[in-house]
Amino acid sequence: MDEFEFIRDVLSPLAGEGAFGLADDAAVLHAGAGGLVVTADMLVEGRHFTPSCPPDTVAKKALRTNLSDLAAKGARPVCYMLSIAWPAARDIAWRTAFVGGLQEDQAQYGVTLLGGDTTATDGPLTVSITAFGAPGLRGMIRRDGARLGHAIYITGEIGAAGLGLRILQAETPPPGVDSAALIAAYRTPEPAVAFAAAIAEYAAAAIDVSDGVLADAAHVARNSGVLLEIELERLPLDAATRGWLDAQADRDAALTALATSGDDYQILFSANETDEDALMQAARRTGVRLTRIGRAAAGQGLRILAARGPVQPDRLGFTHF
Amino acid sequence: MDEFEFIRDVLSPLAGEGAFGLADDAAVLHAGAGGLVVTADMLVEGRHFTPSCPPDTVAKKALRTNLSDLAAKGARPVCYMLSIAWPAARDIAWRTAFVGGLQEDQAQYGVTLLGGDTTATDGPLTVSITAFGAPGLRGMIRRDGARLGHAIYITGEIGAAGLGLRILQAETPPPGVDSAALIAAYRTPEPAVAFAAAIAEYAAAAIDVSDGVLADAAHVARNSGVLLEIELERLPLDAATRGWLDAQADRDAALTALATSGDDYQILFSANETDEDALMQAARRTGVRLTRIGRAAAGQGLRILAARGPVQPDRLGFTHF
Repeated sequence: MDEFEFIRDVLSPLAGEGAFGLADDAAVLHAGAGGLVVTADMLVEGRHFTPSCPPDTVAKKALRTNLSDLAAKGARPVCYMLSIAWPAARDIAWRTAFVGGLQEDQAQYGVTLLGGDTTATDGPLTVSITAFGAPGLRGMIRRDGARLGHAIYITGEIGAAGLGLRILQAETPPPGVDSAALIAAYRTPEPAVAFAAAIAEYAAAAIDVSDGVLADAAHVARNSGVLLEIELERLPLDAATRGWLDAQADRDAALTALATSGDDYQILFSANETDEDALMQAARRTGVRLTRIGRAAAGQGLRILAARGPVQPDRLGFTHF
Repeated sequence: MDEFEFIRDVLSPLAGEGAFGLADDAAVLHAGAGGLVVTADMLVEGRHFTPSCPPDTVAKKALRTNLSDLAAKGARPVCYMLSIAWPAARDIAWRTAFVGGLQEDQAQYGVTLLGGDTTATDGPLTVSITAFGAPGLRGMIRRDGARLGHAIYITGEIGAAGLGLRILQAETPPPGVDSAALIAAYRTPEPAVAFAAAIAEYAAAAIDVSDGVLADAAHVARNSGVLLEIELERLPLDAATRGWLDAQADRDAALTALATSGDDYQILFSANETDEDALMQAARRTGVRLTRIGRAAAGQGLRILAARGPVQPDRLGFTHF
């Protein structure tokens, strides 16, 4: 099966409006009066996923990291461009299973494939996606809108993906911890796509948490010109992560590790306290866990509060660079 | 210099409308009533450029392959998303020179950077660009519009890039041949961006010639349901390529080799013969060489005419897959 046959037989069923069934070199994208929010994430084997990750999870992670960025900007996902550099070792069965993962996520999130490119590589599998979303009535929600007195919220749960990566890197978890759940969190993040409309309506500043809660909170603080106070004990954790945490000798250090590991793909945002009831209602309606984790105050940078008082981590996050 | 400093200090001067100075995770793209034409090309070191290619030429080739696709669809280039996987061996000086190449091409072609992603890789340098262009009044020009009796044209010159690659792969050219010109054709294609408006106005079917004239002509023939007759002796060649051709023993085989090598990045299109005068005027006005190389006839596939009669090459083009 050559490049053209793969596109025609395997990829083209994923094509949506404007894609001409992938039968041309280009596609047509339409936008409403508010334009489209555009984001790009490139995933590299050995950096963003491991060689052992199943093909459908690699595909889903590549797409979901982009959908997470759109949701954090208050945008409803519409379509995406996909460029892939395939190593020869990824055979047709692997590639077809990869496309199967995309197909499942297209159905789950209501997006379609617009176009892209495929090529061979002598290096690691590299997946580059550019995704497009329709913003809300207030336009794209940016990083720089946090103001004094805002409450800081986060969707979903954090830290599990970072623990999953450590297990994949051969670290042994404490007895009784659900390793499979942690690995699944690393391989297939669950971005808060359903919460995009609430972000569009209520968030003042918002960011996709991909490099660690503290690193991304620091971006919001710097771009907004405020200090963000984050309470580590408020961070939302799933059962497996709580199990890991309970087995750690230094709870503050362990919480800091969870708040500085990557791959969470949740939304951190600021909003007026007066909108808290509406936000919590939207969270219940969309099945998204929503947690208040701090506030915006006068100053700059971060104030990180642990049970024993303020902490100052050596590093705020994880970098794929 | 970390990822964030590189974006802020080196990349952000390239940012245009909707990019928020690259200070956010996403950008906003606006489109007119006709939408935007979107295309993507991913270039991999060792496949689309050699490790010895200077950084500015790698950047320009990555951008121009996309601009060539837009021009072939009759679209004026507007902006682009850029995702790069950097090997550690490409140091800041190399990366900065790469961005310098983008900056020169942005000025030359009137495009701006909208956003993107950067990551590290243990493999070859990989550059993924998604580019956006404004289509003409008839919308995106597709591959499937060639009709019986249409004339077939090509912009610029072909074959030089393929010879340049052979020289970079250590083939010795015939004495007196301008190797530097051939290598330059491979490293920095000169797409017919200035001719996009003429394509938008007159072309019935059009395609970017990147895999070889014959391979891409075959795409137009198949998608349009006609036979394309291509006369090899009419193919436009630059002086260096003519020098190489004159030194070959089998002229028909040599012309076939030129017509089946990749990396030309010119536009092959079909149009009504009655528009030939207007097309030639547009070519003169925009400084683009335009050559009639064949016609669309009843049947399917290609009829390839050499000086001694029809030829049937073993393969029609070059694949990066």
